[in-house]
Amino acid sequence: MKTLSLKKYEDRRLREGHLWIYSNEIDTAKTPLKTLNAGEQVVIEDFAGKKLGIATVSPQSLICARLISRDVKHPLDKSLLVHRINQALSLRERFYPEPYYRLVYGDSDGLCGLVVDRFGDYCVVQTTTAGMELVKDEIVQALVKVLNPQGILFKNDSKARALEGLASYIEVAYGEVPGLVPLVENGVKFFAPVYEGQKTGWFYDHRESRAQLQRVVKGKRVLDVFSYAGSWGVQAAAFGAAEVTCVDASEFALEIVQKNAQANGLENVKTLQGDAFTVLTQLKQQGEQFDVIVLDPPAFMQKRKDHANGLQAYRRINELAMRLLVKDGVLVSGSCSMHLKTEELVDVIRGASRHLDKTTQVVFIGGQGADHPVHPAIPETSYLKCVMARVLGA
Amino acid sequence: MKTLSLKKYEDRRLREGHLWIYSNEIDTAKTPLKTLNAGEQVVIEDFAGKKLGIATVSPQSLICARLISRDVKHPLDKSLLVHRINQALSLRERFYPEPYYRLVYGDSDGLCGLVVDRFGDYCVVQTTTAGMELVKDEIVQALVKVLNPQGILFKNDSKARALEGLASYIEVAYGEVPGLVPLVENGVKFFAPVYEGQKTGWFYDHRESRAQLQRVVKGKRVLDVFSYAGSWGVQAAAFGAAEVTCVDASEFALEIVQKNAQANGLENVKTLQGDAFTVLTQLKQQGEQFDVIVLDPPAFMQKRKDHANGLQAYRRINELAMRLLVKDGVLVSGSCSMHLKTEELVDVIRGASRHLDKTTQVVFIGGQGADHPVHPAIPETSYLKCVMARVLGA
Repeated sequence: MKTLSLKKYEDRRLREGHLWIYSNEIDTAKTPLKTLNAGEQVVIEDFAGKKLGIATVSPQSLICARLISRDVKHPLDKSLLVHRINQALSLRERFYPEPYYRLVYGDSDGLCGLVVDRFGDYCVVQTTTAGMELVKDEIVQALVKVLNPQGILFKNDSKARALEGLASYIEVAYGEVPGLVPLVENGVKFFAPVYEGQKTGWFYDHRESRAQLQRVVKGKRVLDVFSYAGSWGVQAAAFGAAEVTCVDASEFALEIVQKNAQANGLENVKTLQGDAFTVLTQLKQQGEQFDVIVLDPPAFMQKRKDHANGLQAYRRINELAMRLLVKDGVLVSGSCSMHLKTEELVDVIRGASRHLDKTTQVVFIGGQGADHPVHPAIPETSYLKCVMARVLGA
Repeated sequence: MKTLSLKKYEDRRLREGHLWIYSNEIDTAKTPLKTLNAGEQVVIEDFAGKKLGIATVSPQSLICARLISRDVKHPLDKSLLVHRINQALSLRERFYPEPYYRLVYGDSDGLCGLVVDRFGDYCVVQTTTAGMELVKDEIVQALVKVLNPQGILFKNDSKARALEGLASYIEVAYGEVPGLVPLVENGVKFFAPVYEGQKTGWFYDHRESRAQLQRVVKGKRVLDVFSYAGSWGVQAAAFGAAEVTCVDASEFALEIVQKNAQANGLENVKTLQGDAFTVLTQLKQQGEQFDVIVLDPPAFMQKRKDHANGLQAYRRINELAMRLLVKDGVLVSGSCSMHLKTEELVDVIRGASRHLDKTTQVVFIGGQGADHPVHPAIPETSYLKCVMARVLGA
């Protein structure tokens, strides 16, 4: 195994717990990055030659290496994967009674570049670094050893892969995986479109915040904006909402919403296809009102430079939603933008409410569920927030 | 009613939703503060003479006035109190099936300077501004009208009152109030010592985070540090912990812990009296280990200037606790210091774990329950955090 040497003081972030190494932190005179192959494993040394662990490298990327083990005796192989997956599994089994969760959440589970979502007997895997891509077979073997699943799907079509120079593909790597896989979230049944859907097919991350709907939707008229497959809307209906309307731009997603409503015997879930900003404006023109409105938009800030424009978009959609609320209504406002702080989302709601001469009370602030643990040294692993606000008149 | 005029631009924070006015924002040449009596109600005007609402004044304080109403037709009187208390009650009744909660949370419920904790048929009230003190009789009348309680206790012995020049007293203002009042939190029975205890006798604020104990304590050995009356520890035992030890400096608090354990028929709750830092050090020397440790310390940062020392105290107690955890243990680390950010508490845990060569995963971050709503324009109303972390070996 080759060595990568860090410049003086550049070991500090790793010692503090972080796992990433940036290319400008490498002493490239001593250990040039150019000679390394994408995904190769190397020993990381500090300036004084002390070994800090093993990393996989992405020599072309800004993040040129990711620490996979602080023990040079344990490289990334099937054995390490089995150990880490078992460790990840024991956390999920403690928190969730049923086998539906994010089983592996990358850096936070000590497996940089690997995401595994579990749907009972099926696993959907995403690898986003060259290092993980190289051990694809070992990942399959490790999952088979730990879970003995019926099928493993690699849903490797994310944008992050392109940045790493990895090809885009979707492939069944083990057994068989149906187009729609069943799952249960907060006691409600769903199907996730694992091939054609977004990301792994399902977003387990908002589960804890969705559970909060039980406290506010009974007998209420609910609007679910950016509904995707109906995770919020169908749960609201199952929790006793009088009527639910799911809004999404994707006709395909809305078909899944209907399947998911049927799976729970619910007949009060309507769908509206279209751009959310346009649909909300139209609903206002039609004089519609809702008791509870859920906003779960895609990341309006993909990168730091999107901050100003993204903030405007959050502000616009939250104000549009607030205009559709009854007096004493509830706004459930989510964001998966890592670059938007929770306080900023609260301030978006404050700003919108003052603009409409309303008063708000923030009654719940939620984050990622326990199957998306935050790595305390890696702020990038914390991205999700959900603010529930009561909106009153002036 | 007299008028207080703001200097140019000083209306901005109020228009953005805030409710406080600082003495340096007043145009004292035009409307001197000195002529006002403590607690008096005044009309607030901007520089151009536009009326912004009604405030109560504390002429000697840095925060010299607090907006109580944005409508000059509605001063602080019994009618406004009934309206606001009803509005507050409807939020609590939506979120909590039983009548045990903070009914009024000051600014966030539009009643600056008023806190009411409800224990079924009993109310414990704290007033912390001269304005609220002046309408004490109306507060009692309003609570009687809305709730028809058996007793109302004014627990007016807080430090905040001294800063406002208000006397310290404890007084039954209506009916009768027993020394220990019953309550139910997350399905577990408790008694709160409303006369002799801290604050109102109970801390409802951590309720949602305490509920999370259900997911991690079954069959486990639990340590509850700064236990007060046993809110965490007794709940842990009720949720199936094998054994619970409550640590507190107050012998009185630990007697209540035992009463609360008995109230639930629990015989596995032990108590240890002493300074938490000392007790944790001793437990380590004795070779004790725990699966789950809860830290719910008093505010180590009372004021902004306490930040550095407070951070050190949080760091010390978290590291002491982490040393007592088994491998793959759970640390539940709370803070009620408004001046400590959630990210800082996460970083305290990161720092302690790295110092001990351990790895942590943050699996839950909780805040105030819905009965302590955050006012989105007043960051001071958001003070509570609870970080649950899984602590692994290196």
